[in-house]
Amino acid sequence: MPELRKDPINGRWVIIATERGVRPKDFTVERKPSSETFCPFCAGSEETTPPEVLAFRPDHGTPNSPGWTLRVVPNKFPALKIEGDLDRRGHGLYDMMKGIGAHEVIIETPDHDRTLADLSLREVEDVLWAFRGRLLDLKNDTRLRCGMIFKNHGAAAGASLHHSHSQLIALPVVPKTVAEEMAGALRYHRFRDRCVYCDIVEQEVRSGERIVFEAEHVVAVAPFASRSPFETWIVPRQHASSFEDSPAAIYRDTALVMRTVLQKLGLALDDPPYNFMLHTAPFGEPALAHYHWHFEIVPALTNVAGFEWGSGFYINPTPPERAAEYLRAVEVGA
Amino acid sequence: MPELRKDPINGRWVIIATERGVRPKDFTVERKPSSETFCPFCAGSEETTPPEVLAFRPDHGTPNSPGWTLRVVPNKFPALKIEGDLDRRGHGLYDMMKGIGAHEVIIETPDHDRTLADLSLREVEDVLWAFRGRLLDLKNDTRLRCGMIFKNHGAAAGASLHHSHSQLIALPVVPKTVAEEMAGALRYHRFRDRCVYCDIVEQEVRSGERIVFEAEHVVAVAPFASRSPFETWIVPRQHASSFEDSPAAIYRDTALVMRTVLQKLGLALDDPPYNFMLHTAPFGEPALAHYHWHFEIVPALTNVAGFEWGSGFYINPTPPERAAEYLRAVEVGA
Repeated sequence: MPELRKDPINGRWVIIATERGVRPKDFTVERKPSSETFCPFCAGSEETTPPEVLAFRPDHGTPNSPGWTLRVVPNKFPALKIEGDLDRRGHGLYDMMKGIGAHEVIIETPDHDRTLADLSLREVEDVLWAFRGRLLDLKNDTRLRCGMIFKNHGAAAGASLHHSHSQLIALPVVPKTVAEEMAGALRYHRFRDRCVYCDIVEQEVRSGERIVFEAEHVVAVAPFASRSPFETWIVPRQHASSFEDSPAAIYRDTALVMRTVLQKLGLALDDPPYNFMLHTAPFGEPALAHYHWHFEIVPALTNVAGFEWGSGFYINPTPPERAAEYLRAVEVGA
Repeated sequence: MPELRKDPINGRWVIIATERGVRPKDFTVERKPSSETFCPFCAGSEETTPPEVLAFRPDHGTPNSPGWTLRVVPNKFPALKIEGDLDRRGHGLYDMMKGIGAHEVIIETPDHDRTLADLSLREVEDVLWAFRGRLLDLKNDTRLRCGMIFKNHGAAAGASLHHSHSQLIALPVVPKTVAEEMAGALRYHRFRDRCVYCDIVEQEVRSGERIVFEAEHVVAVAPFASRSPFETWIVPRQHASSFEDSPAAIYRDTALVMRTVLQKLGLALDDPPYNFMLHTAPFGEPALAHYHWHFEIVPALTNVAGFEWGSGFYINPTPPERAAEYLRAVEVGA
């Protein structure tokens, strides 16, 4: 059973995968995406994954067989397990609990070589609907406190399989960064009685200098204190704390903005490795006046990542104004 | 002039290097440590670096000429500049100031191919004395609030030059992670009236299961909530909040433990890339009852780093008990 362990100083929770049993020699070779002789995410390989928990099948075919356009399956090597009690306990001065939670894979397309940026607008929209569907389902599990949806694109950003996919990890704790972001937004709201993200959208749209792309309901902006060159946030104009409670028009526009931004990044930076993460309110929160869901896309470009991520202290060689100006000028197709 | 910008939500400060002017195409090629035809850190290349701010010269020779065993120089491409006023100001809802600060390089040896683990005990001790000397000097600058000393070893951990060196960045702000660690340690002290690091040392030495190596005054331990496989902390047994105020016996033992741990990691993991960072109290703090200086060594082994560092949420496939057991068994020379 994996364990969740809490750092006693800064409150950071870590998943310790006690069963994977990785030995030192497993780390001594450079790990690359596995050779592409067999891909468990391709159409026709359905039997090699755990049974699907969600799939879009235009022809209403049989589960776990071909014919799907998008498929969600539990991770075959999950960092967390869904069965059991949390068993919160201490160990001297340390705190821990069992690694209960969900770890799922959203297979975004049956085609092995199409990236998320290559998908049609409708297909990208479906990916967002799948995110929503899984979050709404997992929220019913009262042991779980938070759902994190993220994507690793490219080996340098941590992708271990080439076939385009995102991941969902649902946790029985609220991770430190999520708690901090919520607390920071609340602090701003108490001081100004406004949502900080609403203020950011207002200021950025007015100045325009860090805007990457605008749609009717959603904007893409290079954040003022970007950690990484070409970091881009996708933020709805209308205030809302939970992604999964959005109306259809918001998913449509978010898909348009995400696809456009990924295509611009791909053209500007020659298909860069990147991570994105959906930032949305933890499970069980009511509609919050101080929090505002959004996506953060962070290209993995600088090679000083080790120290910077670890210390929380970033040096960014590209001003976000210049990154945004560059990305605005990149023309992408429809 | 570089800028320091603060994220308005979580308070993270970022250095934006507005003058480096890195263009998108600079990111499209994989960046490796530069070819080794010329090394500015080798003996004989003294004229190619900015003038030294500290050097150990057993023969008392001329500054900026060969004959040194260790040399500290300002970074030729600094992330921060030492001259000027901070000029703290707002920009709409954002906060920023000029990028004032120091960025120095500690060249640990004149020999191009010897790593820190290859140096003699006396040479490693000298590296620690250099850390101390530079911190004490920079503390005299009242604009500066915090000195961060770190090392990137190996290209995957962000080293851009092969020749063994560490870096010092002194900042006019306290980085978020440092502030959080101080706050977490203070919280524990208020609750228990003891130092959390002293308690960790006590519990770890008693159980022994996560101890990597013990010396008289200093221990190496795999932390309970390790973020990364084989993460190792080096902690003095005696309580002290500032590294730079330590007596000589502590530097001697810290050098012994650091050299032993790096040799063990090198043998166990075939010279892995790693980062280490000195965690010590910010400038201007008195001796603190709740904080305890230490080094954190984090091997850069897992390829999911992008998402994990970015989200602050870690999945570690190797339990620290097993890493410590493994490292204890690795025999190293004297």
